[in-house]
Amino acid sequence: MDQLSALVLCTTLTPSPARSSSHLLGQQVLDALKEHDVTGEIVRIVDHDVKPGVDFDMGNGDEWPALRRKMLDADILVIATPIWVGHPSSLTQRVIERLDAELSAEDDQGRLLTYGKVAGVAVVGNEDGAHHVSAEVFQALDDVGFSLPAGAVTYWVGEAMQGTDYQDLPETPETTAGTTTTLAANLAHLARVLKANPYPPS
Amino acid sequence: MDQLSALVLCTTLTPSPARSSSHLLGQQVLDALKEHDVTGEIVRIVDHDVKPGVDFDMGNGDEWPALRRKMLDADILVIATPIWVGHPSSLTQRVIERLDAELSAEDDQGRLLTYGKVAGVAVVGNEDGAHHVSAEVFQALDDVGFSLPAGAVTYWVGEAMQGTDYQDLPETPETTAGTTTTLAANLAHLARVLKANPYPPS
Amino acid sequence: MDQLSALVLCTTLTPSPARSSSHLLGQQVLDALKEHDVTGEIVRIVDHDVKPGVDFDMGNGDEWPALRRKMLDADILVIATPIWVGHPSSLTQRVIERLDAELSAEDDQGRLLTYGKVAGVAVVGNEDGAHHVSAEVFQALDDVGFSLPAGAVTYWVGEAMQGTDYQDLPETPETTAGTTTTLAANLAHLARVLKANPYPPS
Amino acid sequence: MDQLSALVLCTTLTPSPARSSSHLLGQQVLDALKEHDVTGEIVRIVDHDVKPGVDFDMGNGDEWPALRRKMLDADILVIATPIWVGHPSSLTQRVIERLDAELSAEDDQGRLLTYGKVAGVAVVGNEDGAHHVSAEVFQALDDVGFSLPAGAVTYWVGEAMQGTDYQDLPETPETTAGTTTTLAANLAHLARVLKANPYPPS
Repeated sequence: MDQLSALVLCTTLTPSPARSSSHLLGQQVLDALKEHDVTGEIVRIVDHDVKPGVDFDMGNGDEWPALRRKMLDADILVIATPIWVGHPSSLTQRVIERLDAELSAEDDQGRLLTYGKVAGVAVVGNEDGAHHVSAEVFQALDDVGFSLPAGAVTYWVGEAMQGTDYQDLPETPETTAGTTTTLAANLAHLARVLKANPYPPS
Repeated sequence: MDQLSALVLCTTLTPSPARSSSHLLGQQVLDALKEHDVTGEIVRIVDHDVKPGVDFDMGNGDEWPALRRKMLDADILVIATPIWVGHPSSLTQRVIERLDAELSAEDDQGRLLTYGKVAGVAVVGNEDGAHHVSAEVFQALDDVGFSLPAGAVTYWVGEAMQGTDYQDLPETPETTAGTTTTLAANLAHLARVLKANPYPPS
Repeated sequence: MDQLSALVLCTTLTPSPARSSSHLLGQQVLDALKEHDVTGEIVRIVDHDVKPGVDFDMGNGDEWPALRRKMLDADILVIATPIWVGHPSSLTQRVIERLDAELSAEDDQGRLLTYGKVAGVAVVGNEDGAHHVSAEVFQALDDVGFSLPAGAVTYWVGEAMQGTDYQDLPETPETTAGTTTTLAANLAHLARVLKANPYPPS
Repeated sequence: MDQLSALVLCTTLTPSPARSSSHLLGQQVLDALKEHDVTGEIVRIVDHDVKPGVDFDMGNGDEWPALRRKMLDADILVIATPIWVGHPSSLTQRVIERLDAELSAEDDQGRLLTYGKVAGVAVVGNEDGAHHVSAEVFQALDDVGFSLPAGAVTYWVGEAMQGTDYQDLPETPETTAGTTTTLAANLAHLARVLKANPYPPS
């Protein structure tokens, strides 16, 4: 099997080196991808100066262009996001806004540069919101050219209005662990078949 | 204090007399409203033949007109809905579609007939989805003329991917019970002040 | 190229034989799929007695089991839905609820029966709501096992608060027509590569 | 009538002094509020260093505490947001995350400091997304203690996939102008009756 590569963008509000539940789940996805010959890295957006805007480069020290290069080099993009007030984090939406620029970049066959890449989502919160967060991110990433495998999300949330963090659970729940395993298998499979069989010219 | 009235529309997929978690939570809201001199009733949409469509009366035995009369007679409308695949139930959306017709009915001051009525939401699922469901229902009910008090939702969901129903919990969680109490207090307060102080003519 | 098959489920609230904008857009997707050797059919849910519930067969004349067989026979599923009050129609959510049962059906390799099938969405409304509707449907269909190609939606809506229907436009807007063409090409491509390269056993 | 005050938080991605469509619509809401003896101001979040996080003060020059003071001094909060990829802007979500802290602040009667304040939304985009954006913002603001009048949103979007900005239209469409007028009337009315009739102690 060909080696594939993945980029996990973690959109926690917490800068490194502090612990982060969404970072942990994102790392678990990355670990599970290794089983399928996918190497990669995880980056916290909050550690970088990603400027507001919808262009490729907003100037003034904007660090998105360097992250974009990593995204373009990867076969698989995973957004690992916390849930805040039931929504993806503001940094998830920041990434989505920057990816909006991809709608204006095409290869010499008229295809978006994201075509053929696959995407997945990892969502974590104290309680409630994972399905909606994945809906928002699925739609945004599909709109800008990513393909989504079956079961393109792994997640954990606790019971309504409880306060324990994913990273403070005594162990990873089997349900989430199993879902992460499936997500990684499906991401790797779809990325591999799309790499071997690119979308037709537009 | 003036007596107020409430209508709880329960949009479970399960016909009476079978038990239903959303019916239970809707009934708990109704019970909590009684503490504030609000009387009312709970109706399961699935027990009635509410036709698809966006008119006041779709004919052919459509039972919405009778339910609509109850809604127009009430000061407070509560939608008590289950979560399916992260969304409000199809019967919640059925009710929303029928309420869409209210945009074409005005009183002699040019106000929608729903103006001055207040709305709340009760959401229940095995796991995940309550915030999104309330977002969908808030927007729809506000669009068709209802006002929303602070904290206009009560809910319960379990931990990610678990399967116990709200109605099978050994007891009502204190968090949900407290939220139901607040919802009822705020619904009754806002309904009372809006009844005494109607929106201005349009 | 192998012949593929598609099923378009149209979730308009309007029974046949009356005209329907979402039926028109769904038919246009089907026509565009023919260019890629995909045959298929379009079915209006409102013409059938699809019972509320989340089981494979709700009994009492439930027509979902016959529609489900069509879905299982198809390589591609397209949901063609109107927008009501900013949401997918109640019949879209009815279909989603019935598809929820697929989470309990597996082949002899432990994969959902939907695995390997691809899905797309066609959305139409007088004004506003297409992106959100696609988000809701993407998440639901991905959750129950479908894969989504890049650009998995075509849509039309008019300017804010305007009232003309898609089916009454003097001609199909070029933007929507082009998006429909891309949707069909991507659906056919992804369905073909996944049919030749099934997801691994679970 | 008592004088009331309003704060419009504009969450455009474009810093001052450049023109902004969401700023224009937010200003129009402010102008319409003046007719009801409501004074106020509009602030662009992007002009300020509002740090990521969910505390009252994230330190390091965080400018949210000063904005929060304005919010606490106002009777009415309006979020004026652009639509990006179908969602509220990243700066809208940033504001929502900062407002999440309000859940931990109470007056001496056990009520959130936001109780009694009312909220509205102004949404603008090239095309599609206003209803969903208002759903997201309604739910978030209601969750943190704001009340919502009937018709709590004004908006403009163009036809599907078109590119003209609201600020470049030859004139404000009558539909949007009328909706802005209604929003202002309802915000002012609800703020006034809630100021005279506060929610009961918790």
